[in-house]
Amino acid sequence: MENFVAYNPTKLYFGKSCVDKLGKEATQYGQKALVLIGKGSIKKNGILDKVLSQLKNAGIDSTVYEGIKSNPIYQDADAAVAQGKAFGATMVIAVGGGSVLDTAKAVAAGLYVAHSVWDFYTRKAQAPTQAAPLITVLTLAATGSEMNMFTVLQNDETGVKSGYGHPLLFPKASFLDPEYTYSVPLDYTAYGVADLISHVMELYFEPSDSPLSHYYSSDIIQLAIQYGRAVMNNPTDYDIRANIMWLATNALNGSLAAGKRGGDWGVHGFEHSLSVLFDIPHGAGLSIVYPAWLKSYQPDISTKLDFLAQRLLGPDAKGVDYINMLEKFYRDDLGIPTRLSEANIGTDKHALILENLRQNRVSGGFFQMDEARHQDLLNRMA
Amino acid sequence: MENFVAYNPTKLYFGKSCVDKLGKEATQYGQKALVLIGKGSIKKNGILDKVLSQLKNAGIDSTVYEGIKSNPIYQDADAAVAQGKAFGATMVIAVGGGSVLDTAKAVAAGLYVAHSVWDFYTRKAQAPTQAAPLITVLTLAATGSEMNMFTVLQNDETGVKSGYGHPLLFPKASFLDPEYTYSVPLDYTAYGVADLISHVMELYFEPSDSPLSHYYSSDIIQLAIQYGRAVMNNPTDYDIRANIMWLATNALNGSLAAGKRGGDWGVHGFEHSLSVLFDIPHGAGLSIVYPAWLKSYQPDISTKLDFLAQRLLGPDAKGVDYINMLEKFYRDDLGIPTRLSEANIGTDKHALILENLRQNRVSGGFFQMDEARHQDLLNRMA
Repeated sequence: MENFVAYNPTKLYFGKSCVDKLGKEATQYGQKALVLIGKGSIKKNGILDKVLSQLKNAGIDSTVYEGIKSNPIYQDADAAVAQGKAFGATMVIAVGGGSVLDTAKAVAAGLYVAHSVWDFYTRKAQAPTQAAPLITVLTLAATGSEMNMFTVLQNDETGVKSGYGHPLLFPKASFLDPEYTYSVPLDYTAYGVADLISHVMELYFEPSDSPLSHYYSSDIIQLAIQYGRAVMNNPTDYDIRANIMWLATNALNGSLAAGKRGGDWGVHGFEHSLSVLFDIPHGAGLSIVYPAWLKSYQPDISTKLDFLAQRLLGPDAKGVDYINMLEKFYRDDLGIPTRLSEANIGTDKHALILENLRQNRVSGGFFQMDEARHQDLLNRMA
Repeated sequence: MENFVAYNPTKLYFGKSCVDKLGKEATQYGQKALVLIGKGSIKKNGILDKVLSQLKNAGIDSTVYEGIKSNPIYQDADAAVAQGKAFGATMVIAVGGGSVLDTAKAVAAGLYVAHSVWDFYTRKAQAPTQAAPLITVLTLAATGSEMNMFTVLQNDETGVKSGYGHPLLFPKASFLDPEYTYSVPLDYTAYGVADLISHVMELYFEPSDSPLSHYYSSDIIQLAIQYGRAVMNNPTDYDIRANIMWLATNALNGSLAAGKRGGDWGVHGFEHSLSVLFDIPHGAGLSIVYPAWLKSYQPDISTKLDFLAQRLLGPDAKGVDYINMLEKFYRDDLGIPTRLSEANIGTDKHALILENLRQNRVSGGFFQMDEARHQDLLNRMA
């Protein structure tokens, strides 16, 4: 086990009607809320009204910033910062999926600086010394942003998608009502399952040894596969949605990081080039890149692959069985792409992808990628 | 899954030499530390000196309260409160095992009230509105107190051992260096393993369903058995001690409580009567009571027993196999008592025990115990 620090101060409310407690929770953070939302589906299904009435009844004024894209861009964060400053926002409230939450984290820090939030992501700016309290209401289970200090935004102008993390960016409180995810389309539900499984694998395959983390990792993957299959036929079953939602939180809330050294994140880096170039959903990019990565690095990770295979498939299973099972799960059960061609990205785009990977120096923390490896992965995922 | 709130703000430093960061961490909590310790073994092995020099080098004055017993009594907490008030303590530092940490939690709240800390445990006093920041340095893996808001103290005069919990009692920071547990005697190491397994079972057997919690529960029990066996022959192996230490924290830091309703805790209630009456170690009481409880309630918990058996012993195992394996593990591998007679408590004491159980109305939150059940458990553990 590696030395580590475990710290996660987010207060997470989970379950049916938990948003009823949002107003009371928010009163400790002032009286002016900047509310961030996506493309507006939550205006139709009543979730936004619910949140706004919670705020109003608690004596909190609010202003809404609308329009955050599913691959969120820094310009939305900067525009929301301007709106929040003009409004005198004392808190930020994110209502949506990971893209809205990640934008809200940038906004929470951006409210206290004069520069673009993008400067945090490029490390041009110093780390924030202050951030507005952030409350999140999650409507899509995937990124785990509701209970961690990380945020990913992109810059379409420069073709860079980049992550940033700071302890000030932990949400103060997050509200997770599984019923709020009933209306998530099946394809986005599936991308979320692929996303959460990928978070587990980024940490798990890092070479260091941490037995409890590894047991937990296999549990999350096993249950994500079980409930991922189930949700495709039962999208409004409470227990199925609740399990997927809680699995996604646990995949990236730090509980798997204990005794590890932070994870590899090479697959995420590779995927970021795909979503910034082609605007494909992050989860779809991951279900394409991960099978290729597992096959390419199979000799280096065989012990860990065998352990996963045995935990999920029985004592006689081998690592390759795990890879095949996972790929088949993505393709046949979830119906999401496992090849670039299935996302309409042809071989004519390989040069473009390779150039973006090269420019962004995409590699893993433990499994280094050179240009030959980029090419090998591309060949496997064509 | 039941509705729940997940919240744990403790910052936990884990690993070799992590105490080197204590001084810096403590500087944010004022300049006067009340340091609590047990019977003095940490004065011999240099751990106390290490902590005191960390404080001194950070410009923090300290006073030491020594002598907390392994079944901690409220009188020590009250005396430490008096010492801390006279000293003007701005923070409390606990260096020791669960007994020292639990006492320190009482002291942290007690510094801000005029009444005995025992009044919190009897609910005679109102809940605390303030508590001194608490930092812990753990030297014995067992209770999980280093990362939760719970404390258990006893009153020898009235024969009551009672728990209390409040969010103000979460340690601000805890330091867990597995090397600090190398010198824990094998019997107390074993009691700690029995204690951590019991915490998992109190939550696990609660009737509600929470799949991830149940998978995690089986992992902790499985690894506790594996590393519990290993530590008996390798008490100074870093990885073995590290795993046991981290398992004990996770058994009761809230991560298993997600989707559950708080656990049963009937076995703990029963054990409290044993340790308050006979001053036996808490873990020894638990290794006596749990096998009896599992056998007595077997018809009510058969599904959950079967799941544990299959996870730990293979697809054909049944619940009874789990009970037998656990009892054998306590008796043969750990060498700790599984019967009252092995702790020198004869049948002549049964009437005394029954009277204490009756007076304290010992029962579980979900599995009710009447006097006939108390008698049935006593018969099984005689």
